Amino acid sequence: MDILEFGKQVLSSQPFSLLVGAELTAFSQGRAELRIPVTPHLKQQHGSVHGGVLSYAADNALTFAGGSVLGPEVVTSEFKINYLRPAQGTDILVRAEVVSSGRTQAVCRCEIFAVSDGKEALCAIALGTIAGTSRAKHES
Amino acid sequence: MDILEFGKQVLSSQPFSLLVGAELTAFSQGRAELRIPVTPHLKQQHGSVHGGVLSYAADNALTFAGGSVLGPEVVTSEFKINYLRPAQGTDILVRAEVVSSGRTQAVCRCEIFAVSDGKEALCAIALGTIAGTSRAKHES
Amino acid sequence: MDILEFGKQVLSSQPFSLLVGAELTAFSQGRAELRIPVTPHLKQQHGSVHGGVLSYAADNALTFAGGSVLGPEVVTSEFKINYLRPAQGTDILVRAEVVSSGRTQAVCRCEIFAVSDGKEALCAIALGTIAGTSRAKHES
Amino acid sequence: MDILEFGKQVLSSQPFSLLVGAELTAFSQGRAELRIPVTPHLKQQHGSVHGGVLSYAADNALTFAGGSVLGPEVVTSEFKINYLRPAQGTDILVRAEVVSSGRTQAVCRCEIFAVSDGKEALCAIALGTIAGTSRAKHES
Repeated sequence: MDILEFGKQVLSSQPFSLLVGAELTAFSQGRAELRIPVTPHLKQQHGSVHGGVLSYAADNALTFAGGSVLGPEVVTSEFKINYLRPAQGTDILVRAEVVSSGRTQAVCRCEIFAVSDGKEALCAIALGTIAGTSRAKHES
Repeated sequence: MDILEFGKQVLSSQPFSLLVGAELTAFSQGRAELRIPVTPHLKQQHGSVHGGVLSYAADNALTFAGGSVLGPEVVTSEFKINYLRPAQGTDILVRAEVVSSGRTQAVCRCEIFAVSDGKEALCAIALGTIAGTSRAKHES
Repeated sequence: MDILEFGKQVLSSQPFSLLVGAELTAFSQGRAELRIPVTPHLKQQHGSVHGGVLSYAADNALTFAGGSVLGPEVVTSEFKINYLRPAQGTDILVRAEVVSSGRTQAVCRCEIFAVSDGKEALCAIALGTIAGTSRAKHES
Repeated sequence: MDILEFGKQVLSSQPFSLLVGAELTAFSQGRAELRIPVTPHLKQQHGSVHGGVLSYAADNALTFAGGSVLGPEVVTSEFKINYLRPAQGTDILVRAEVVSSGRTQAVCRCEIFAVSDGKEALCAIALGTIAGTSRAKHES
Protein backbone atom coordinates (compact mmCIF):
# COMPACT_ATOMS: atom_id res chain seq x y z
CA MET A 1 0.00 0.00 0.00
CA ASP A 2 1.44 3.39 -0.89
CA ILE A 3 1.76 6.19 1.62
CA LEU A 4 -1.23 8.14 0.29
CA GLU A 5 -3.50 5.10 0.68
CA PHE A 6 -2.13 4.53 4.16
CA GLY A 7 -2.74 8.16 5.08
CA LYS A 8 -6.31 7.98 3.77
CA GLN A 9 -6.95 4.96 5.99
CA VAL A 10 -5.63 6.84 9.02
CA LEU A 11 -7.78 9.85 8.23
CA SER A 12 -10.87 7.73 7.71
CA SER A 13 -10.29 6.10 11.12
CA GLN A 14 -10.77 9.52 12.78
CA PRO A 15 -14.49 10.00 13.44
CA PHE A 16 -14.11 13.77 13.74
CA SER A 17 -12.40 13.97 10.35
CA LEU A 18 -15.35 12.06 8.88
CA LEU A 19 -17.76 14.45 10.58
CA VAL A 20 -15.94 17.42 9.07
CA GLY A 21 -15.59 15.65 5.73
CA ALA A 22 -11.84 16.01 5.32
CA GLU A 23 -10.04 14.19 2.50
CA LEU A 24 -6.33 13.54 2.18
CA THR A 25 -5.46 14.68 -1.33
CA ALA A 26 -1.67 14.44 -1.24
CA PHE A 27 0.77 12.79 1.14
CA SER A 28 4.47 12.22 0.69
CA GLN A 29 7.72 12.48 2.61
CA GLY A 30 7.50 15.84 4.40
CA ARG A 31 4.23 16.98 2.87
CA ALA A 32 0.48 16.57 3.31
CA GLU A 33 -2.54 18.17 1.71
CA LEU A 34 -6.07 18.03 3.04
CA ARG A 35 -9.23 19.16 1.29
CA ILE A 36 -12.52 19.88 3.02
CA PRO A 37 -15.59 20.44 0.84
CA VAL A 38 -17.50 23.32 2.40
CA THR A 39 -20.96 22.36 3.61
CA PRO A 40 -23.45 24.52 5.51
CA HIS A 41 -22.56 22.62 8.70
CA LEU A 42 -19.04 24.02 8.67
CA LYS A 43 -19.98 27.70 8.78
CA GLN A 44 -20.19 30.39 11.41
CA GLN A 45 -23.04 32.86 11.76
CA HIS A 46 -21.93 35.14 8.92
CA GLY A 47 -21.63 32.46 6.25
CA SER A 48 -17.85 31.99 6.28
CA VAL A 49 -16.24 28.71 7.25
CA HIS A 50 -15.89 28.61 11.04
CA GLY A 51 -12.40 29.33 12.37
CA GLY A 52 -12.62 26.06 14.26
CA VAL A 53 -12.76 24.17 10.96
CA LEU A 54 -9.61 25.95 9.84
CA SER A 55 -7.85 25.20 13.12
CA TYR A 56 -8.92 21.53 12.83
CA ALA A 57 -7.55 21.54 9.28
CA ALA A 58 -4.25 23.09 10.40
CA ASP A 59 -3.90 20.68 13.32
CA ASN A 60 -4.53 17.65 11.16
CA ALA A 61 -2.44 18.69 8.17
CA LEU A 62 0.49 19.51 10.45
CA THR A 63 0.11 16.12 12.10
CA PHE A 64 0.08 14.26 8.79
CA ALA A 65 3.12 16.17 7.56
CA GLY A 66 4.94 15.34 10.80
CA GLY A 67 3.79 11.74 10.62
CA SER A 68 5.24 11.41 7.14
CA VAL A 69 8.73 11.72 8.62
CA LEU A 70 8.20 10.48 12.20
CA GLY A 71 5.96 7.48 11.57
CA PRO A 72 2.26 6.94 12.12
CA GLU A 73 2.19 7.36 15.90
CA VAL A 74 2.27 11.10 16.31
CA VAL A 75 0.40 13.86 18.11
CA THR A 76 0.32 17.62 17.76
CA SER A 77 2.25 19.12 20.67
CA GLU A 78 1.30 22.69 19.87
CA PHE A 79 0.54 25.02 17.03
CA LYS A 80 -0.23 28.63 16.32
CA ILE A 81 -2.61 29.89 13.65
CA ASN A 82 -3.06 33.35 12.19
CA TYR A 83 -6.34 34.03 10.42
CA LEU A 84 -5.86 36.30 7.43
CA ARG A 85 -9.30 36.73 5.88
CA PRO A 86 -12.78 35.17 5.99
CA ALA A 87 -12.80 31.73 4.41
CA GLN A 88 -15.42 31.66 1.67
CA GLY A 89 -15.59 29.20 -1.16
CA THR A 90 -16.45 25.68 -2.13
CA ASP A 91 -13.44 23.97 -0.52
CA ILE A 92 -10.84 24.46 2.16
CA LEU A 93 -7.39 23.33 1.10
CA VAL A 94 -4.48 22.92 3.50
CA ARG A 95 -0.90 22.34 2.42
CA ALA A 96 1.52 21.38 5.18
CA GLU A 97 5.24 20.73 5.05
CA VAL A 98 7.97 19.76 7.47
CA VAL A 99 10.35 22.63 8.22
CA SER A 100 12.76 20.64 10.36
CA SER A 101 12.67 17.25 11.98
CA GLY A 102 14.65 15.20 14.46
CA ARG A 103 14.21 11.73 15.80
CA THR A 104 11.28 12.49 18.08
CA GLN A 105 9.64 15.65 16.78
CA ALA A 106 9.11 17.74 13.69
CA VAL A 107 8.35 21.44 13.26
CA CYS A 108 5.80 21.89 10.49
CA ARG A 109 3.98 24.76 8.85
CA CYS A 110 0.91 25.00 6.68
CA GLU A 111 -1.07 27.38 4.57
CA ILE A 112 -4.85 27.21 4.47
CA PHE A 113 -6.73 28.33 1.39
CA ALA A 114 -10.35 28.87 0.55
CA VAL A 115 -11.00 27.70 -3.00
CA SER A 116 -13.62 29.39 -5.11
CA ASP A 117 -14.03 28.86 -8.87
CA GLY A 118 -10.64 27.17 -8.88
CA LYS A 119 -8.96 30.21 -7.35
CA GLU A 120 -7.14 29.76 -4.05
CA ALA A 121 -7.22 32.56 -1.47
CA LEU A 122 -4.84 32.25 1.45
CA CYS A 123 -6.99 32.59 4.56
CA ALA A 124 -4.82 31.28 7.40
CA ILE A 125 -1.28 30.20 8.18
CA ALA A 126 -0.05 27.93 10.95
CA LEU A 127 3.18 26.71 12.54
CA GLY A 128 3.52 23.91 15.05
CA THR A 129 5.32 20.96 16.57
CA ILE A 130 4.47 17.30 16.00
CA ALA A 131 5.80 14.68 18.39
CA GLY A 132 6.23 10.96 17.95
CA THR A 133 4.40 8.98 20.61
CA SER A 134 5.66 5.44 20.09
CA ARG A 135 8.74 6.11 22.22
CA ALA A 136 6.74 8.01 24.79
CA LYS A 137 4.52 4.97 25.29
CA HIS A 138 7.42 2.90 26.45
CA GLU A 139 9.45 5.53 28.20
CA SER A 140 7.11 7.84 30.06
CA MET B 1 -32.03 39.60 27.55
CA ASP B 2 -29.05 38.93 29.73
CA ILE B 3 -25.58 38.44 28.34
CA LEU B 4 -25.60 34.64 28.79
CA GLU B 5 -28.83 34.33 26.81
CA PHE B 6 -27.43 36.59 24.13
CA GLY B 7 -24.25 34.53 23.94
CA LYS B 8 -26.27 31.32 23.65
CA GLN B 9 -28.14 32.80 20.69
CA VAL B 10 -24.88 33.71 18.99
CA LEU B 11 -23.47 30.23 19.57
CA SER B 12 -26.62 28.56 18.27
CA SER B 13 -26.40 30.66 15.11
CA GLN B 14 -23.06 28.99 14.28
CA PRO B 15 -23.79 25.80 12.32
CA PHE B 16 -20.37 24.35 13.13
CA SER B 17 -20.91 24.86 16.85
CA LEU B 18 -24.21 22.99 16.53
CA LEU B 19 -22.44 20.20 14.64
CA VAL B 20 -19.85 19.90 17.42
CA GLY B 21 -22.52 20.25 20.09
CA ALA B 22 -20.97 23.12 22.03
CA GLU B 23 -22.94 24.83 24.80
CA LEU B 24 -22.23 28.19 26.39
CA THR B 25 -22.35 27.52 30.13
CA ALA B 26 -21.08 30.84 31.48
CA PHE B 27 -20.61 34.25 29.95
CA SER B 28 -19.86 37.52 31.67
CA GLN B 29 -17.67 40.59 31.32
CA GLY B 30 -14.24 39.21 30.43
CA ARG B 31 -15.12 35.53 30.78
CA ALA B 32 -16.69 32.69 28.82
CA GLU B 33 -17.11 28.99 29.44
CA LEU B 34 -18.04 26.41 26.81
CA ARG B 35 -18.96 22.78 27.38
CA ILE B 36 -18.91 20.10 24.74
CA PRO B 37 -20.47 16.72 25.57
CA VAL B 38 -18.15 14.07 24.14
CA THR B 39 -19.78 11.94 21.47
CA PRO B 40 -18.15 9.27 19.30
CA HIS B 41 -18.14 11.71 16.36
CA LEU B 42 -15.65 13.96 18.14
CA LYS B 43 -12.89 11.41 18.56
CA GLN B 44 -9.67 10.53 16.77
CA GLN B 45 -8.52 7.03 15.94
CA HIS B 46 -7.32 6.15 19.46
CA GLY B 47 -10.51 7.08 21.29
CA SER B 48 -9.48 10.47 22.66
CA VAL B 49 -11.22 13.66 21.66
CA HIS B 50 -9.67 14.94 18.41
CA GLY B 51 -7.24 17.84 18.78
CA GLY B 52 -9.30 19.70 16.23
CA VAL B 53 -12.24 19.70 18.64
CA LEU B 54 -10.02 21.21 21.31
CA SER B 55 -8.69 23.84 18.92
CA TYR B 56 -12.27 24.66 17.87
CA ALA B 57 -13.15 24.96 21.54
CA ALA B 58 -10.18 27.22 22.24
CA ASP B 59 -10.92 29.41 19.21
CA ASN B 60 -14.56 29.84 20.13
CA ALA B 61 -14.08 30.36 23.87
CA LEU B 62 -11.39 32.98 23.22
CA THR B 63 -13.72 34.71 20.78
CA PHE B 64 -16.60 34.78 23.24
CA ALA B 65 -14.33 36.11 26.00
CA GLY B 66 -13.07 38.81 23.65
CA GLY B 67 -16.59 39.59 22.48
CA SER B 68 -17.70 40.10 26.08
CA VAL B 69 -15.54 43.24 26.21
CA LEU B 70 -15.38 44.27 22.53
CA GLY B 71 -18.98 43.70 21.49
CA PRO B 72 -20.59 41.00 19.39
CA GLU B 73 -18.79 41.68 16.11
CA VAL B 74 -15.44 39.99 16.70
CA VAL B 75 -13.12 37.52 15.03
CA THR B 76 -10.14 35.53 16.20
CA SER B 77 -6.99 37.11 14.77
CA GLU B 78 -4.68 34.37 15.97
CA PHE B 79 -4.14 31.91 18.73
CA LYS B 80 -1.69 29.32 19.94
CA ILE B 81 -2.60 26.07 21.66
CA ASN B 82 -0.44 23.63 23.61
CA TYR B 83 -1.81 20.13 24.04
CA LEU B 84 -0.90 18.69 27.43
CA ARG B 85 -2.46 15.22 27.55
CA PRO B 86 -5.01 13.10 25.69
CA ALA B 87 -8.54 14.39 26.26
CA GLN B 88 -10.66 11.57 27.62
CA GLY B 89 -13.90 11.96 29.47
CA THR B 90 -17.56 12.73 29.13
CA ASP B 91 -17.23 16.46 28.49
CA ILE B 92 -14.78 19.04 27.26
CA LEU B 93 -14.86 22.24 29.29
CA VAL B 94 -13.15 25.46 28.22
CA ARG B 95 -12.72 28.47 30.45
CA ALA B 96 -11.51 31.64 28.74
CA GLU B 97 -10.72 35.03 30.15
CA VAL B 98 -9.55 38.39 28.87
CA VAL B 99 -5.97 39.18 29.86
CA SER B 100 -5.88 42.67 28.43
CA SER B 101 -8.12 44.66 26.13
CA GLY B 102 -8.10 47.91 24.22
CA ARG B 103 -10.64 49.58 22.03
CA THR B 104 -10.19 47.31 19.03
CA GLN B 105 -8.69 44.07 20.30
CA ALA B 106 -8.34 41.83 23.33
CA VAL B 107 -5.71 39.30 24.31
CA CYS B 108 -7.39 36.27 25.86
CA ARG B 109 -6.32 32.95 27.29
CA CYS B 110 -8.13 29.74 28.06
CA GLU B 111 -7.73 26.39 29.72
CA ILE B 112 -9.32 23.28 28.27
CA PHE B 113 -10.32 20.42 30.51
CA ALA B 114 -11.54 16.90 29.95
CA VAL B 115 -14.18 16.10 32.55
CA SER B 116 -14.58 12.56 33.80
CA ASP B 117 -16.69 11.57 36.82
CA GLY B 118 -16.83 15.24 37.76
CA LYS B 119 -13.04 15.52 37.83
CA GLU B 120 -11.42 18.06 35.52
CA ALA B 121 -8.08 17.24 33.88
CA LEU B 122 -6.28 20.09 32.16
CA CYS B 123 -5.56 18.88 28.63
CA ALA B 124 -4.73 22.01 26.66
CA ILE B 125 -4.01 25.70 27.11
CA ALA B 126 -4.35 28.51 24.60
CA LEU B 127 -3.53 32.20 24.17
CA GLY B 128 -4.74 34.47 21.40
CA THR B 129 -5.93 37.79 20.06
CA ILE B 130 -9.54 38.73 19.34
CA ALA B 131 -10.29 41.71 17.12
CA GLY B 132 -13.43 43.76 16.79
CA THR B 133 -14.71 43.89 13.24
CA SER B 134 -17.37 46.56 13.36
CA ARG B 135 -14.81 49.30 12.86
CA ALA B 136 -13.03 47.34 10.17
CA LYS B 137 -16.25 47.17 8.19
CA HIS B 138 -16.37 50.93 7.88
CA GLU B 139 -12.68 51.65 7.69
CA SER B 140 -11.05 49.01 5.56
CA MET C 1 23.77 25.06 47.55
CA ASP C 2 20.09 25.91 47.34
CA ILE C 3 18.17 26.03 44.10
CA LEU C 4 18.10 29.85 43.91
CA GLU C 5 21.88 30.06 44.28
CA PHE C 6 22.29 27.33 41.66
CA GLY C 7 19.96 29.19 39.29
CA LYS C 8 21.88 32.43 39.80
CA GLN C 9 25.09 30.64 38.82
CA VAL C 10 23.48 29.33 35.65
CA LEU C 11 22.17 32.78 34.76
CA SER C 12 25.56 34.40 35.40
CA SER C 13 27.17 31.85 33.09
CA GLN C 14 25.10 33.23 30.19
CA PRO C 15 27.01 36.13 28.63
CA PHE C 16 23.87 37.51 26.98
CA SER C 17 22.03 37.57 30.31
CA LEU C 18 24.94 39.55 31.78
CA LEU C 19 24.80 41.94 28.82
CA VAL C 20 21.09 42.51 29.39
CA GLY C 21 21.59 42.69 33.16
CA ALA C 22 19.05 40.04 34.16
CA GLU C 23 18.86 38.86 37.77
CA LEU C 24 17.15 35.72 39.07
CA THR C 25 15.05 36.94 41.96
CA ALA C 26 13.07 33.80 42.76
CA PHE C 27 13.45 30.16 41.76
CA SER C 28 11.66 27.15 43.14
CA GLN C 29 9.96 23.96 42.00
CA GLY C 30 7.82 25.04 39.05
CA ARG C 31 8.49 28.76 39.30
CA ALA C 32 11.07 31.35 38.30
CA GLU C 33 11.23 35.13 38.50
CA LEU C 34 13.66 37.32 36.63
CA ARG C 35 14.23 41.04 37.12
CA ILE C 36 15.92 43.31 34.61
CA PRO C 37 16.82 46.83 35.73
CA VAL C 38 15.96 49.13 32.82
CA THR C 39 18.97 50.95 31.39
CA PRO C 40 19.10 53.21 28.32
CA HIS C 41 20.75 50.37 26.37
CA LEU C 42 17.60 48.27 26.59
CA LYS C 43 15.25 50.73 24.87
CA GLN C 44 13.81 51.16 21.41
CA GLN C 45 13.59 54.46 19.56
CA HIS C 46 10.56 55.77 21.46
CA GLY C 47 11.95 55.28 24.97
CA SER C 48 10.14 52.06 25.90
CA VAL C 49 11.98 48.86 26.63
CA HIS C 50 12.63 47.05 23.33
CA GLY C 51 10.34 44.13 22.58
CA GLY C 52 13.43 42.00 22.09
CA VAL C 53 14.31 42.50 25.75
CA LEU C 54 10.85 41.29 26.72
CA SER C 55 11.11 38.27 24.42
CA TYR C 56 14.55 37.47 25.87
CA ALA C 57 13.02 37.76 29.34
CA ALA C 58 10.14 35.48 28.43
CA ASP C 59 12.43 32.92 26.80
CA ASN C 60 14.75 32.81 29.78
CA ALA C 61 12.11 32.80 32.50
CA LEU C 62 10.21 30.01 30.74
CA THR C 63 13.45 28.04 30.49
CA PHE C 64 14.25 28.47 34.17
CA ALA C 65 10.74 27.45 35.17
CA GLY C 66 11.01 24.37 32.96
CA GLY C 67 14.48 23.61 34.27
CA SER C 68 13.16 23.67 37.84
CA VAL C 69 11.22 20.49 37.09
CA LEU C 70 13.25 18.92 34.26
CA GLY C 71 16.77 19.50 35.52
CA PRO C 72 19.45 21.95 34.46
CA GLU C 73 19.95 20.72 30.88
CA VAL C 74 17.01 22.31 29.09
CA VAL C 75 16.30 24.39 26.02
CA THR C 76 13.31 26.39 24.86
CA SER C 77 11.59 24.47 22.07
CA GLU C 78 9.17 27.23 21.22
CA PHE C 79 7.18 30.04 22.70
CA LYS C 80 4.63 32.66 21.80
CA ILE C 81 4.49 36.16 23.22
CA ASN C 82 1.72 38.76 23.10
CA TYR C 83 2.71 42.34 23.75
CA LEU C 84 0.03 44.21 25.66
CA ARG C 85 1.36 47.72 26.20
CA PRO C 86 4.63 49.69 25.98
CA ALA C 87 7.04 48.67 28.74
CA GLN C 88 8.03 51.75 30.67
CA GLY C 89 9.49 51.82 34.15
CA THR C 90 12.57 51.17 36.19
CA ASP C 91 12.50 47.37 36.02
CA ILE C 92 11.16 44.52 33.97
CA LEU C 93 9.85 41.66 36.06
CA VAL C 94 8.97 38.24 34.65
CA ARG C 95 7.12 35.56 36.57
CA ALA C 96 7.06 32.12 34.97
CA GLU C 97 5.39 28.93 36.08
CA VAL C 98 5.06 25.37 34.87
CA VAL C 99 1.58 24.56 33.59
CA SER C 100 2.19 20.88 32.93
CA SER C 101 5.25 18.71 32.76
CA GLY C 102 6.25 15.20 31.74
CA ARG C 103 9.52 13.39 31.79
CA THR C 104 11.08 15.18 28.84
CA GLN C 105 9.28 18.47 28.45
CA ALA C 106 7.28 21.11 30.29
CA VAL C 107 4.72 23.62 29.10
CA CYS C 108 5.26 26.93 30.89
CA ARG C 109 3.71 30.37 30.88
CA CYS C 110 4.86 33.75 32.12
CA GLU C 111 3.71 37.27 32.68
CA ILE C 112 6.00 40.21 32.05
CA PHE C 113 5.57 43.41 34.01
CA ALA C 114 7.08 46.87 33.80
CA VAL C 115 7.65 48.18 37.32
CA SER C 116 7.38 51.88 38.02
CA ASP C 117 7.28 53.38 41.53
CA GLY C 118 6.66 49.92 42.89
CA LYS C 119 3.59 49.46 40.68
CA GLU C 120 3.55 46.53 38.26
CA ALA C 121 1.93 46.94 34.85
CA LEU C 122 1.39 43.78 32.81
CA CYS C 123 3.01 44.43 29.43
CA ALA C 124 3.38 41.00 27.85
CA ILE C 125 2.34 37.39 28.29
CA ALA C 126 4.00 34.27 26.93
CA LEU C 127 3.41 30.52 26.64
CA GLY C 128 5.94 27.93 25.55
CA THR C 129 7.53 24.51 25.68
CA ILE C 130 10.79 23.65 27.43
CA ALA C 131 12.58 20.41 26.57
CA GLY C 132 15.18 18.50 28.53
CA THR C 133 18.34 17.91 26.50
CA SER C 134 20.25 15.43 28.63
CA ARG C 135 18.35 12.48 27.16
CA ALA C 136 18.54 13.90 23.67
CA LYS C 137 22.33 13.97 23.96
CA HIS C 138 22.47 10.24 24.39
CA GLU C 139 19.61 9.24 22.20
CA SER C 140 19.65 11.43 19.13
CA MET D 1 16.69 58.69 0.89
CA ASP D 2 15.96 55.15 -0.19
CA ILE D 3 14.06 52.69 1.98
CA LEU D 4 17.16 50.72 3.04
CA GLU D 5 18.89 53.88 4.26
CA PHE D 6 15.73 54.90 6.09
CA GLY D 7 15.48 51.49 7.71
CA LYS D 8 19.11 51.65 8.80
CA GLN D 9 18.44 54.99 10.49
CA VAL D 10 15.46 53.51 12.35
CA LEU D 11 17.51 50.50 13.47
CA SER D 12 20.40 52.69 14.62
CA SER D 13 17.95 54.75 16.70
CA GLN D 14 17.16 51.64 18.78
CA PRO D 15 19.70 51.46 21.62
CA PHE D 16 19.03 47.75 22.17
CA SER D 17 19.72 46.98 18.51
CA LEU D 18 23.04 48.80 18.83
CA LEU D 19 23.82 46.80 21.98
CA VAL D 20 23.12 43.55 20.13
CA GLY D 21 24.96 44.79 17.04
CA ALA D 22 22.18 44.19 14.51
CA GLU D 23 22.54 45.48 10.96
CA LEU D 24 19.79 45.91 8.37
CA THR D 25 21.17 44.24 5.26
CA ALA D 26 18.11 44.30 3.01
CA PHE D 27 14.81 46.15 3.17
CA SER D 28 12.17 46.47 0.51
CA GLN D 29 8.40 46.34 0.07
CA GLY D 30 7.34 43.30 2.11
CA ARG D 31 10.81 42.11 3.05
CA ALA D 32 13.55 42.75 5.59
CA GLU D 33 16.85 41.07 6.39
CA LEU D 34 18.87 41.61 9.55
CA ARG D 35 22.39 40.37 10.23
CA ILE D 36 23.93 40.08 13.68
CA PRO D 37 27.66 39.36 13.89
CA VAL D 38 28.09 36.84 16.69
CA THR D 39 30.17 38.14 19.59
CA PRO D 40 30.90 36.38 22.89
CA HIS D 41 28.38 38.70 24.59
CA LEU D 42 25.52 37.13 22.64
CA LYS D 43 26.01 33.57 23.83
CA GLN D 44 24.48 31.29 26.41
CA GLN D 45 26.41 29.03 28.77
CA HIS D 46 27.15 26.32 26.19
CA GLY D 47 28.63 28.55 23.52
CA SER D 48 25.64 28.84 21.20
CA VAL D 49 23.91 32.12 20.51
CA HIS D 50 21.35 32.78 23.26
CA GLY D 51 17.74 32.10 22.31
CA GLY D 52 16.93 35.61 23.47
CA VAL D 53 19.12 36.99 20.68
CA LEU D 54 17.19 34.93 18.16
CA SER D 55 13.86 36.06 19.57
CA TYR D 56 15.06 39.69 19.46
CA ALA D 57 16.10 39.10 15.84
CA ALA D 58 12.74 37.57 14.96
CA ASP D 59 10.82 40.36 16.68
CA ASN D 60 12.77 43.07 14.94
CA ALA D 61 12.85 41.51 11.49
CA LEU D 62 9.10 40.88 11.63
CA THR D 63 8.57 44.50 12.65
CA PHE D 64 10.69 45.84 9.80
CA ALA D 65 8.91 43.62 7.28
CA GLY D 66 5.57 44.83 8.63
CA GLY D 67 6.74 48.43 8.63
CA SER D 68 7.70 48.15 4.97
CA VAL D 69 4.02 47.89 4.10
CA LEU D 70 2.35 49.68 7.03
CA GLY D 71 4.67 52.65 7.44
CA PRO D 72 7.29 53.45 10.04
CA GLU D 73 5.06 53.61 13.10
CA VAL D 74 4.56 49.94 13.91
CA VAL D 75 4.82 47.58 16.86
CA THR D 76 4.92 43.82 17.19
CA SER D 77 1.55 42.66 18.51
CA GLU D 78 2.61 39.06 18.97
CA PHE D 79 4.81 36.39 17.55
CA LYS D 80 5.68 32.75 17.97
CA ILE D 81 9.13 31.26 17.50
CA ASN D 82 10.21 27.63 17.13
CA TYR D 83 13.84 26.86 17.82
CA LEU D 84 15.16 24.15 15.51
CA ARG D 85 18.83 23.67 16.41
CA PRO D 86 21.60 25.39 18.38
CA ALA D 87 22.74 28.58 16.65
CA GLN D 88 26.47 28.38 16.08
CA GLY D 89 28.45 30.41 13.58
CA THR D 90 29.88 33.81 12.85
CA ASP D 91 26.61 35.56 12.04
CA ILE D 92 22.89 35.35 12.64
CA LEU D 93 20.82 36.14 9.57
CA VAL D 94 17.07 36.75 9.64
CA ARG D 95 14.89 36.98 6.58
CA ALA D 96 11.36 38.21 7.13
CA GLU D 97 8.50 38.65 4.72
CA VAL D 98 4.92 39.82 4.81
CA VAL D 99 2.43 36.99 4.37
CA SER D 100 -0.69 39.14 4.32
CA SER D 101 -1.43 42.74 5.15
CA GLY D 102 -4.38 45.01 5.60
CA ARG D 103 -4.65 48.69 6.39
CA THR D 104 -3.74 48.40 10.06
CA GLN D 105 -1.82 45.17 10.50
CA ALA D 106 0.38 42.65 8.71
CA VAL D 107 1.05 38.99 9.37
CA CYS D 108 4.73 38.27 8.79
CA ARG D 109 7.02 35.28 9.02
CA CYS D 110 10.77 34.90 9.19
CA GLU D 111 13.52 32.32 9.07
CA ILE D 112 16.59 32.67 11.27
CA PHE D 113 19.89 31.19 10.12
CA ALA D 114 23.26 30.72 11.75
CA VAL D 115 25.96 31.41 9.17
CA SER D 116 29.25 29.55 9.33
CA ASP D 117 31.85 29.57 6.56
CA GLY D 118 29.25 31.06 4.25
CA LYS D 119 26.83 28.18 4.89
CA GLU D 120 23.41 28.99 6.32
CA ALA D 121 21.78 26.62 8.80
CA LEU D 122 18.13 27.23 9.62
CA CYS D 123 17.96 27.45 13.40
CA ALA D 124 14.59 29.07 14.13
CA ILE D 125 11.35 30.08 12.45
CA ALA D 126 8.82 32.67 13.56
CA LEU D 127 5.36 33.94 12.68
CA GLY D 128 3.70 37.05 14.03
CA THR D 129 1.49 40.09 13.71
CA ILE D 130 2.69 43.66 13.24
CA ALA D 131 0.32 46.54 13.94
CA GLY D 132 0.46 50.13 12.78
CA THR D 133 0.37 52.58 15.68
CA SER D 134 -0.15 55.91 13.97
CA ARG D 135 -3.91 55.40 13.82
CA ALA D 136 -4.00 54.02 17.34
CA LYS D 137 -2.43 57.22 18.61
CA HIS D 138 -5.35 59.26 17.43
CA GLU D 139 -8.13 56.79 17.99
CA SER D 140 -7.46 54.98 21.24
